[in-house]
Amino acid sequence: MVYVRNAWYVAGWSQESLPPRPLGIRVLNEPIVIWRSENGDLAAFEDRCVHRLAPLSLGRCEGEKLRCMYHGLLYDRGGRVVEIPGQGHVANNLRVRTYPVVERYGWLWVWMGDAAAADEGLIPPVTGMDDPEYICGHGQLDYYAEARFVSDNLLDLSHVSFLHTKSAYSSETWAREPPKVSEHRHGVRIERWLRGERRHHSVDTNADKLADVYARYDFFVPGVFLMTDDAYPPGTADALDGQPPPDLDRAPKKFFALQAITPLTEKTSRSSYIMAAHRDHGGAAQCDATMAVVRKIFAEDKAMIEAQQRIIDTSPGWRFIATSADRGVVLYNRLVETLAREESTSTAN
Amino acid sequence: MVYVRNAWYVAGWSQESLPPRPLGIRVLNEPIVIWRSENGDLAAFEDRCVHRLAPLSLGRCEGEKLRCMYHGLLYDRGGRVVEIPGQGHVANNLRVRTYPVVERYGWLWVWMGDAAAADEGLIPPVTGMDDPEYICGHGQLDYYAEARFVSDNLLDLSHVSFLHTKSAYSSETWAREPPKVSEHRHGVRIERWLRGERRHHSVDTNADKLADVYARYDFFVPGVFLMTDDAYPPGTADALDGQPPPDLDRAPKKFFALQAITPLTEKTSRSSYIMAAHRDHGGAAQCDATMAVVRKIFAEDKAMIEAQQRIIDTSPGWRFIATSADRGVVLYNRLVETLAREESTSTAN
Amino acid sequence: MVYVRNAWYVAGWSQESLPPRPLGIRVLNEPIVIWRSENGDLAAFEDRCVHRLAPLSLGRCEGEKLRCMYHGLLYDRGGRVVEIPGQGHVANNLRVRTYPVVERYGWLWVWMGDAAAADEGLIPPVTGMDDPEYICGHGQLDYYAEARFVSDNLLDLSHVSFLHTKSAYSSETWAREPPKVSEHRHGVRIERWLRGERRHHSVDTNADKLADVYARYDFFVPGVFLMTDDAYPPGTADALDGQPPPDLDRAPKKFFALQAITPLTEKTSRSSYIMAAHRDHGGAAQCDATMAVVRKIFAEDKAMIEAQQRIIDTSPGWRFIATSADRGVVLYNRLVETLAREESTSTAN
Repeated sequence: MVYVRNAWYVAGWSQESLPPRPLGIRVLNEPIVIWRSENGDLAAFEDRCVHRLAPLSLGRCEGEKLRCMYHGLLYDRGGRVVEIPGQGHVANNLRVRTYPVVERYGWLWVWMGDAAAADEGLIPPVTGMDDPEYICGHGQLDYYAEARFVSDNLLDLSHVSFLHTKSAYSSETWAREPPKVSEHRHGVRIERWLRGERRHHSVDTNADKLADVYARYDFFVPGVFLMTDDAYPPGTADALDGQPPPDLDRAPKKFFALQAITPLTEKTSRSSYIMAAHRDHGGAAQCDATMAVVRKIFAEDKAMIEAQQRIIDTSPGWRFIATSADRGVVLYNRLVETLAREESTSTAN
Repeated sequence: MVYVRNAWYVAGWSQESLPPRPLGIRVLNEPIVIWRSENGDLAAFEDRCVHRLAPLSLGRCEGEKLRCMYHGLLYDRGGRVVEIPGQGHVANNLRVRTYPVVERYGWLWVWMGDAAAADEGLIPPVTGMDDPEYICGHGQLDYYAEARFVSDNLLDLSHVSFLHTKSAYSSETWAREPPKVSEHRHGVRIERWLRGERRHHSVDTNADKLADVYARYDFFVPGVFLMTDDAYPPGTADALDGQPPPDLDRAPKKFFALQAITPLTEKTSRSSYIMAAHRDHGGAAQCDATMAVVRKIFAEDKAMIEAQQRIIDTSPGWRFIATSADRGVVLYNRLVETLAREESTSTAN
Repeated sequence: MVYVRNAWYVAGWSQESLPPRPLGIRVLNEPIVIWRSENGDLAAFEDRCVHRLAPLSLGRCEGEKLRCMYHGLLYDRGGRVVEIPGQGHVANNLRVRTYPVVERYGWLWVWMGDAAAADEGLIPPVTGMDDPEYICGHGQLDYYAEARFVSDNLLDLSHVSFLHTKSAYSSETWAREPPKVSEHRHGVRIERWLRGERRHHSVDTNADKLADVYARYDFFVPGVFLMTDDAYPPGTADALDGQPPPDLDRAPKKFFALQAITPLTEKTSRSSYIMAAHRDHGGAAQCDATMAVVRKIFAEDKAMIEAQQRIIDTSPGWRFIATSADRGVVLYNRLVETLAREESTSTAN
């Protein structure tokens, strides 16, 4: 699979990098350690001591430095070895590769490509766990499958009507009525009206009444999914002639779901997710109800995606076919391929 | 290892394919789904949706059709896609490979070769679980070993005297006196008299008396083993001058053991087995006694065969040598090789 | 990694080869069976029956012979097949490879190289479990890592100050003051004084007083580690001008630690270890106290070494750098490479 390197990948949660314990993770099959100094500054290194390749993520933060806890080599924030116990002189060129790293929305993001090209403007413009207006539940799920298959799953939600029949209760309308799919600068947007639906899993006291539901999600490179929806009185969709509700981005959303898909190794990946309910629209009760449902839903996705991976593993020369419902999948994967091609061209020059 | 493709392989038990749940299995490393329609008709497909390669065995039988439960593609019994949710037109050529499948003796059999050559006459002529005269126990055991090594184990029962010393209690006579081995149209037959043996594991009240035992087993391509034996008064073997008891196939057998060896992947295989006692000769009591013993015996076989596989895995350029006791092994494997060669020749032409 | 073949490798404990049960093990990725005859004589074979490659370690010692318990082939102590059940004649050339094997210090040692070159004088001159003056605890630990990384760990004990901060309590002096490293005929010796140290993990009633500690360890080809230390009144080190205590090898040591590292497969290895306390210096109490600590220490080593292996596995073209503390590592690995090169040259001639 082709991945974009000049992009920010979610590598963990903010609270996972509290001193003195660094955080070890793989991204695009590269071992990475993220650590926070006493002053609170973040750094990300390749997770591999220059000495004997021990993981620095088993090391210890010491003030503004990171110590390998195998034989004690000490690194400054720039990745340079500044002390080797028992040895007077330290060569100047002993250093590990560093990665740009930033903290945003409660997540740690690492830039996997050319450091000179790192641009914080490319972090997807979402709302996250650090927004005080929301009560958030969060979780993490590892897949024994290529990240692409997890992304594809999110980019074609027609599967909800089948795979999640018993957990999401959505009608087949979801699969049968094609949504509107459009491309934007760094991803794709999928949106739709569902007319006269019953809202499951809502703690809203009006939830048993039929409503017109407007649902929208964005999928940003390199793997961030943001979904929101809201209910309107029956007839709204037709009254608006299928256009989005005009107030949609004016008021705070009542609910959103945020997910980041990180390719760990060639055939493993991680989803880090947040289910957020606005304090004034269900708050903790809505958040708990949603979390209970998505745990079931994600378990169903995981079983299917891992089974799909096993089939693919014994299908030499396999290929997918695209259906109408794959519009978002196709647009997004084409975008990724274009970006990856541009990267390799600019690297070649 | 060489396998015959134009043959019926046991792929499961009849009761495993009850709607709405299809049965997924690998045979010769191919993922296969077997399903039964509302009318009771069986079908077998490659277990791989044309769309995104999700396993159809996680799908759902709907009347006379099978639905993939990832994105809802619907297949008819011929393997053709007849519906794609959200898409009006379905291309004519969207189909999965189908396999001939039949139900016999309580088992589901799939034909792995050229469908035009599928011949039910090639299903081994055995007695099975569906015979009302017998009380049957049944079980299933998976081996982390090539199917060939499991077959070889059954084709050379001299191992019973050594490997099963503490479970089968057979004397070393079993190993030291060579049986008669002959080839027939679709397998080999091995038969022998054992003179003056004590019958272990029999609920027959005369079991502690010495008897002459006549034992016979057939091993049919591609891996079906049928064994039967019976006890006669001491002296019978000599009186018959070592010839088979003349009434052997006239009356129903008191007891038989039936086993099917299925190659799942290159290095995994499955044994599906039945231990059957005639209703008038021990019935459920004999069946239970036999099942208790074979569970121990098969566990010993499994440990040895898997250990053998591990040794082979680190023995590049390995080869077996054949002893006198390997007569059945040699004849059977030669037959398989001949059939496989004929297949590839006829395919090439 | 390069290994010496003309060397004695620890393959197990004496008590593991009691008839009728043989001992199966891998050394340098070769399956080996070690067995003891009724007369008490040891033999070591490749663990692979000539017939169908079943492991002979699942076999049975019968008097002066070893029987394969799959189909009953019988081997004499020279590795020759002397009986095949059910077959009159046995070809003369049916034999398995044999390995020189000896018992020493409570361990079984196999010679992995040219049998003609086997020289018991090459067994490292250590004290072992069979010394009646000591109370010994013993254990065994398997690593999912190349043996070389386990040896390197023992050859550079500067790691004790960091990796074992919370278990061994040794000060950083251990890492910061370089020990004396020297080469001897079949390995390296590392020795040092530690001035004014507190002795942890000692049952000696004077243990809380500061002492000068002299520590020494030898690492012998192909992987045997022997460590001893003793405490002296403060000031002794300076009074001796850093020279070893003159009585060190005259009296029995109060304590020693002995470890053998065996390469099992390419990426697995085993440590077999003994912690020994002299009967007159703590005895069982000291032995128990030491065992409790080393279990923690070895668990820390195992976690680090296996993590190091995982990093190396995804670091194509990796290499180590050597620090001052690696003097012993470098000398020892150079010695191994030299011996291995000499072997291949003499084999080539």
